[in-house]
Amino acid sequence: MLEASMIVVGDEILGGYVTDENSPLLARVLRDHGVGLSCVHVVADDLAAIDEALSLELSRARPRVVVTSGGVGSTPDDLTFEAVAASLGRDLVTDPTIGAKVDGALAWSAEQGFPVSEEFAWHVLRMARIPEGSRLVERSGGWAPGVLVDVEGGVDAGGVTVAILPGVPSEFAALLTEAVAPQVLAGRNPTPYVAELTHRYPESVLNLAFVEVMERYPDVKLGSYPGRPAIVRLSGVRSEVEAAAAHIAAVLSELDASDAGQRLAAARAAREAPATDTRSGAATPADAATEEEEA
Amino acid sequence: MLEASMIVVGDEILGGYVTDENSPLLARVLRDHGVGLSCVHVVADDLAAIDEALSLELSRARPRVVVTSGGVGSTPDDLTFEAVAASLGRDLVTDPTIGAKVDGALAWSAEQGFPVSEEFAWHVLRMARIPEGSRLVERSGGWAPGVLVDVEGGVDAGGVTVAILPGVPSEFAALLTEAVAPQVLAGRNPTPYVAELTHRYPESVLNLAFVEVMERYPDVKLGSYPGRPAIVRLSGVRSEVEAAAAHIAAVLSELDASDAGQRLAAARAAREAPATDTRSGAATPADAATEEEEA
Repeated sequence: MLEASMIVVGDEILGGYVTDENSPLLARVLRDHGVGLSCVHVVADDLAAIDEALSLELSRARPRVVVTSGGVGSTPDDLTFEAVAASLGRDLVTDPTIGAKVDGALAWSAEQGFPVSEEFAWHVLRMARIPEGSRLVERSGGWAPGVLVDVEGGVDAGGVTVAILPGVPSEFAALLTEAVAPQVLAGRNPTPYVAELTHRYPESVLNLAFVEVMERYPDVKLGSYPGRPAIVRLSGVRSEVEAAAAHIAAVLSELDASDAGQRLAAARAAREAPATDTRSGAATPADAATEEEEA
Repeated sequence: MLEASMIVVGDEILGGYVTDENSPLLARVLRDHGVGLSCVHVVADDLAAIDEALSLELSRARPRVVVTSGGVGSTPDDLTFEAVAASLGRDLVTDPTIGAKVDGALAWSAEQGFPVSEEFAWHVLRMARIPEGSRLVERSGGWAPGVLVDVEGGVDAGGVTVAILPGVPSEFAALLTEAVAPQVLAGRNPTPYVAELTHRYPESVLNLAFVEVMERYPDVKLGSYPGRPAIVRLSGVRSEVEAAAAHIAAVLSELDASDAGQRLAAARAAREAPATDTRSGAATPADAATEEEEA
């Protein structure tokens, strides 16, 4: 089974100036393809920080795709190509496609009278210096390319493919959905079956049912999330997920039909009434019993 | 200087069902206190995954605060207290304050006729089983507590304080801003001075100025971000940041006054005009020259 990891490169995110939009999108796209996301790291624009995260992700089970976002522009704080190459022990080589685009842009800048010195050109051409043996991913109508670096033959050979994508959300999204997803993600994993049950009880009323389901169906992934309604999410092989969901549904039905269930639901409904300030304090045990589940 | 790291625990985030709101908030709060955020990890509800991230963050420079969010409820997928305790080699002990609240809730549930078995109670009481030697952080009017675990004496002694906070954003936000920030973050670091310059040129026109600033003021952190306008952000000691900003402002002024600068700005302005579909393709070198900077 293909798995995935993500490395978001961005001082501006760690500094609290910008919210990362790329990891939530990647998580949704991976889910649609049945590819589990093991971990997301947000790291600084710093060679050692990128290397640390990449080394950690390369140490995990294969096949694996490691998606990076950010740090592929021309300014000196853009270090992702350099960092990935160093981390993999590869040289940087000039990609002819990106190189031609950059050359065209430099020539145009010179025509406008801008002083294109050798040093100036060197910096802009850093955008075309990609890890040796990489492949470009492009999309129609976009300028920004992405880069795929295969390690141990890449995901096709059961190894790792590092996908280096730009950080600007519109470019990241377009390259991910139009190029990386069809080329690297699609058709590799079965899409897991997902069942969701909702209820208006404290989460804890289902704990014993959860334990039973986890013992009986160890391959079903179970998550319980507080809220109004609370959500129980089960994913895995369809027959097992359906059996697990039926087990939990039966416990909920039993509770619905019981006096205790009626009282718990009424207590929670009272807290949901507009007149009640649910955050002003846990004044009664009923409040505490429901409030605790929010943690 | 105090530094910070974050571990977000959440299958629901890695699964693409929920967007993490807690790390962006923490990043902003840390910035307001001059505390650098080294890294954010989003990990699964899994003992080994939490241990891996925590061990990595404990290996960094001290003093350090490591903030976790999520995984502190009563359901079997909530593992953060257990994972932190195991990672630090500590026992779990019942906190009397949380324990009393849970006992009250259990007694109330029993009064409603809900079958509170020993096994049921054991699961709910997991919420009160915190790493030995922890301190509670609370806020007025909230039920959910946070937990501070001091390693090597905690940040007051130059060590590490692990702050375990609930994942529900309203609870995380309240505990962070009302309790953790004043107790753990405030007054420890000088707040860095931040200067921002904006411009409407391709980022690359400033590369040589950036290199010069980075050489002259190595302690000033410089970030360049594409966009309309593009942003140059400098932070550090006020006098150095002001000198660095003046250097870049002078380069921009010179460009503004030059024919080349006029042409570059005009080319970009033309692309910003509503009639132009800026994403339909990089048809001219002018497009390419600006489009490339978005990567």
